[in-house]
Amino acid sequence: MSTVGNPANIFWHENPVRKVEREKLLNQQGCVVWITGLSGSGKSTLACSLGRELQSRGKLSYVLDGDNLRHGLNKNLGFSPESRTENIRRTGKCIHKLSIGEVANLFADAGLICIASLISPYRKDRDACRALLPDKKFIEVFMNMPLQLCEDRDPKGLYKLAREGKIKGFTGIDDPYEPPLNCEIELQLKDGVVPTPHEMAGQVVSYMENEGFLEA
Amino acid sequence: MSTVGNPANIFWHENPVRKVEREKLLNQQGCVVWITGLSGSGKSTLACSLGRELQSRGKLSYVLDGDNLRHGLNKNLGFSPESRTENIRRTGKCIHKLSIGEVANLFADAGLICIASLISPYRKDRDACRALLPDKKFIEVFMNMPLQLCEDRDPKGLYKLAREGKIKGFTGIDDPYEPPLNCEIELQLKDGVVPTPHEMAGQVVSYMENEGFLEA
Repeated sequence: MSTVGNPANIFWHENPVRKVEREKLLNQQGCVVWITGLSGSGKSTLACSLGRELQSRGKLSYVLDGDNLRHGLNKNLGFSPESRTENIRRTGKCIHKLSIGEVANLFADAGLICIASLISPYRKDRDACRALLPDKKFIEVFMNMPLQLCEDRDPKGLYKLAREGKIKGFTGIDDPYEPPLNCEIELQLKDGVVPTPHEMAGQVVSYMENEGFLEA
Repeated sequence: MSTVGNPANIFWHENPVRKVEREKLLNQQGCVVWITGLSGSGKSTLACSLGRELQSRGKLSYVLDGDNLRHGLNKNLGFSPESRTENIRRTGKCIHKLSIGEVANLFADAGLICIASLISPYRKDRDACRALLPDKKFIEVFMNMPLQLCEDRDPKGLYKLAREGKIKGFTGIDDPYEPPLNCEIELQLKDGVVPTPHEMAGQVVSYMENEGFLEA
């Protein structure tokens, strides 16, 4: 770190705003609510409902899911040819790419309640995201809805395409969904009925409240 | 969108928390402050100083730069082999990667003042980031410090390595830095003296205040 005879450089560089200060400003604790489950299980709906419930309590959340990420899918905003990746790493010139797990981790570090809504079918991948975060800051929510229900809903028509063989490797059809072994919250049918989004969001908010996430 | 006879699904899904609501909660306007300039020009120092100044005013900011992103550099958190990328896109199963520009855009959408500190030497790349954001929400700050000054500082020892040929394509040595043509803020020497971080942060904050970013 250069000082160039300027003590301010040292001071400022060693005192970035810390997470705890942002959390105090927001009166909440940064974390990731990771909603996993089959396509059509209601992940996005829960994410919206949870975001609204938190907003009504004055808490800042942000939803990461296909809907607000899709715009980036077909853009090539790489800052350099792939061949220069190694150079980029060393010089810090630019721009590696981040996974959703890494982005969610940054949002939590910023103090937000980051609601990630992704099928995320593989246990090891979810666990890798969990491992990025400080202890207890990763809240895994399992939308444990029957495949038949999800396929009957088929909100994007993807099950139909998968059954017709037009999509390969579709979770639940010809690719496995690995249920969580130790998720924080499991949402499922009650007496054969799907809980309302409001009820499910309430269950998550209760957990967060009890665990102290909604105050700093 | 599936409704499954449940009107709540429709309601919630069509009513995610909007940016304007998050901004109202925070009493600020989400935006990106993109600090560009040579290695050693003081980008990270300004980012820290600006973050502290905003925090002292009760404003929520978050710094994206090499320091808080480097942890992700050597991790492989891809959710699937590259060969499955196309399938991933179609099914939304998981996890494409986002560039820093895209991540900064998400933070701005979340209502934060996102401070991105990157050399970002190419004009077209900065302009691509600008184009992601709504009008006037991209504040380009050019750290216009002389190469000689930056090289004398050489805080990470990278100029030395570049001069010795041990790093190829290093900005300012054997790769160009393209100065902004229409940046919002330009910071430079005054009477041959580097302004303090506090002075430079003040200049950015004044701009933001005048443009209405610090209230909702």
